[in-house]
Amino acid sequence: MQQFTVLELLSQEINHTEVEVKGWVRTFRANRFIALNDGSTLKNIQCVVDFENFDEALLKRITTGAAIHITGELVESQGKGQTVEVQVKTLNILGDSDPETYPIQPKKHSFEFLREHAHLRTRTNTFSAVMRLRSALSFAIHKYFNEHGFYYMHAPIITGSDAEGAGEMFKVTSLDHNNLPKTEEGKTDYSKDFFGKETNLTVSGQLEAETYAMSLGKVYTFGPTFRAENSNTSRHLAEFWMIEPEVAFMDLAGNMDLAEDFLKYVLKYVLDNNAEDLEFLDKRLQDEDKRKPQAERNDMTLIEKLKFVTDNNFKRVSYTEAIDILRNSKPNKKKKFQYIIDEWGADLQSEHERFLVEKHFKCPVILFDYPANIKAFYMRLNDDGKTVRAMDILFPGIGEIVGGAQREERLEVLKEKMAAIDIPEEELWWYLDLRKFGTAVHSGFGLGFERLVMFATGMGNIRDVIPYPRTPQNAEF
Amino acid sequence: MQQFTVLELLSQEINHTEVEVKGWVRTFRANRFIALNDGSTLKNIQCVVDFENFDEALLKRITTGAAIHITGELVESQGKGQTVEVQVKTLNILGDSDPETYPIQPKKHSFEFLREHAHLRTRTNTFSAVMRLRSALSFAIHKYFNEHGFYYMHAPIITGSDAEGAGEMFKVTSLDHNNLPKTEEGKTDYSKDFFGKETNLTVSGQLEAETYAMSLGKVYTFGPTFRAENSNTSRHLAEFWMIEPEVAFMDLAGNMDLAEDFLKYVLKYVLDNNAEDLEFLDKRLQDEDKRKPQAERNDMTLIEKLKFVTDNNFKRVSYTEAIDILRNSKPNKKKKFQYIIDEWGADLQSEHERFLVEKHFKCPVILFDYPANIKAFYMRLNDDGKTVRAMDILFPGIGEIVGGAQREERLEVLKEKMAAIDIPEEELWWYLDLRKFGTAVHSGFGLGFERLVMFATGMGNIRDVIPYPRTPQNAEF
Repeated sequence: MQQFTVLELLSQEINHTEVEVKGWVRTFRANRFIALNDGSTLKNIQCVVDFENFDEALLKRITTGAAIHITGELVESQGKGQTVEVQVKTLNILGDSDPETYPIQPKKHSFEFLREHAHLRTRTNTFSAVMRLRSALSFAIHKYFNEHGFYYMHAPIITGSDAEGAGEMFKVTSLDHNNLPKTEEGKTDYSKDFFGKETNLTVSGQLEAETYAMSLGKVYTFGPTFRAENSNTSRHLAEFWMIEPEVAFMDLAGNMDLAEDFLKYVLKYVLDNNAEDLEFLDKRLQDEDKRKPQAERNDMTLIEKLKFVTDNNFKRVSYTEAIDILRNSKPNKKKKFQYIIDEWGADLQSEHERFLVEKHFKCPVILFDYPANIKAFYMRLNDDGKTVRAMDILFPGIGEIVGGAQREERLEVLKEKMAAIDIPEEELWWYLDLRKFGTAVHSGFGLGFERLVMFATGMGNIRDVIPYPRTPQNAEF
Repeated sequence: MQQFTVLELLSQEINHTEVEVKGWVRTFRANRFIALNDGSTLKNIQCVVDFENFDEALLKRITTGAAIHITGELVESQGKGQTVEVQVKTLNILGDSDPETYPIQPKKHSFEFLREHAHLRTRTNTFSAVMRLRSALSFAIHKYFNEHGFYYMHAPIITGSDAEGAGEMFKVTSLDHNNLPKTEEGKTDYSKDFFGKETNLTVSGQLEAETYAMSLGKVYTFGPTFRAENSNTSRHLAEFWMIEPEVAFMDLAGNMDLAEDFLKYVLKYVLDNNAEDLEFLDKRLQDEDKRKPQAERNDMTLIEKLKFVTDNNFKRVSYTEAIDILRNSKPNKKKKFQYIIDEWGADLQSEHERFLVEKHFKCPVILFDYPANIKAFYMRLNDDGKTVRAMDILFPGIGEIVGGAQREERLEVLKEKMAAIDIPEEELWWYLDLRKFGTAVHSGFGLGFERLVMFATGMGNIRDVIPYPRTPQNAEF
């Protein structure tokens, strides 16, 4: 007898074969109908128990969450909602699930409750769909880069450099906190620590990725990054995954082409390969919308939003143009924006980004050539001396999803910019080497993976798109 | 005019087209022949300069490591060693490389020297080949699991649990080391830390992967893991990448099938897709061997070793059988082993593993059913009460490459084993939940990614197969 996953059973031709399947009970109705799930797909297989031929004590143990082993005949389903079902011949309980104590009952649980049971939440439809999509998006990312001649690079996680200045960093140490070695000045003596110096968790693999782009040509990172910022919001995590491609001989225009092509590819991949999970999440979101006041409802359904990205050309707009548009916009004039745009140089907020995408251009937008003083030191200074070749990609609903730039390839300009913000050259001697030896135009961008998963799943809280979220006061599991 | 990578140029039909290419000079011979590399492939494209028509000052700047931009005609090569070459029409220096100071000259550099210049070492043939293979192996791993119905899961990096006990852990903190908050007892007060408790860098994602296997069925992790062990050897890193598949309803035999199939697949993938890099590394190793005394030379070339794995069935041998074989072996009787095997229960050393693979069975070996007391608490206890359903896979040259097990699925047995080594149940309440609610047989294994890259590239030092190695006293870059 052949063992099948639920996914395999549901795509079988019906030929009345004897089959074997193992999974977990989702529901057991009328002492007869088991909805069995094994995670291979969103759908359950219906297993029909002829209850008169089974021991009552056994039937009582068919409870939500129990692991069972079934053999039986795969037949055309008599009922609605499925094409095939299994007529159960033997049923074996592998692991019981006490209905009195099992937390994941077949009813609506709040996401807050499920976060506290993150080890069990993928036993629900919503979270299994989200995590299958997360997996599919990861694969699509690797597939895209592999097909386009990029090499995957593992940037270091523990870093001895804190020069990027992208935010607060976590310290990594093996020193005994209750017995810290001290220098003569009474400071902690990191020369006694594991690495012989102060080390932190990385905030970005970009600088290291640049070293690989300047030898292997096209590379990307896909790894965890960290911020020790005390932001308790639905959009921030202390630990999150980033994708950072970096390409030699590519300018900002090429960078925009790459990012647009890449984002379309990965979203199209899940539209093509994960229809079932997407449809489920689409419906979930529509149901959620119905319970909201009209004004707070989404303009587009989830799938419409994904197609909005895959089917539209991204509009490329300079920061300066965008400021003009925003300054003259209705919400600005009527003071509906929380932050009024009144002059060039202002940093854009999410409300402005969403206005440009959703109201003004009605398509994804790439803003470029930002004021130098609101962007990082390593971005290529334009000839105007006040803007840099930075780009941000803005999506409906979430605002910025990608941030990138052409990198400053000129040694002297880079040194000046580092000096201006007090980064010692010794800190980044290796980064400067790239400009000393065979420097060239190069560019790249960063994509916060969880932002992408939120966009693709319609989930509203970033803690619900990563298996075990790390946030202030929370490192459970 | 179309821009090409070197890889694309070398695979072009020769049709005398005008082409454009950018890359770095590897060598410039006879004021005429530029070997240009852009990282897309191991090979260089030869660009021929008609020096009489170029400015002498420009020719002087064509130095090793310089970034240049060439346009010219792609023609059949006149010389040996390449089929096509570019007859240079225009040549533009993008970034100079001063031969007096550029560290990567066209000569043999020691690996030690190159480690100190890890930001430039992928500009050499050996390291570019290694890192392209590392990338290809990563992709093959994702491809294998994707094709086999596995979901990719990102296990947490920062963990609040230190229960796995796989070794010394790094602490993660955002506390100010020069001003640590103290409890009334004078200990560090971690309730004031970012996560409100003591946190560490993960040593394994296995326990979290089990939670996902018990809902999604088949999952795998591929992420960084850490050990704060002061091991300054050629086989240990403080930061390394691990692959950990975990499968519900799979027993130890299924686990062996999976691991064997998986390893053969990923090695076959690089044999099929990375022949050029492999041949280069194969030759490198043969050259290295020639400089060694006969006794220290490899029995097999690199490619032979990979085929040894892909073409042979892995021999499955119980620990007990293996001990018998070793006890009666020549090197044991003649006391040639450093560690003499005299009784059941001994932990096997690399010399024993290599004897079994290379001398006795002459094929990859899977040892299984190890003594419980030399293996981890979560491994499934056999009915004999003294062995567990663990397995190790042994490869020629390196010994253990995979360690795995069927997991203990019985709540009471697991609790007893935890109690025996003083792991409080509160620490792993969520792990125990998996055995309370719908428990089932499940299994998985761990593969140290860098060990696999060492095996596939023939590199002898683990620091040379990861971009930026982290080892005691070293977190440079």
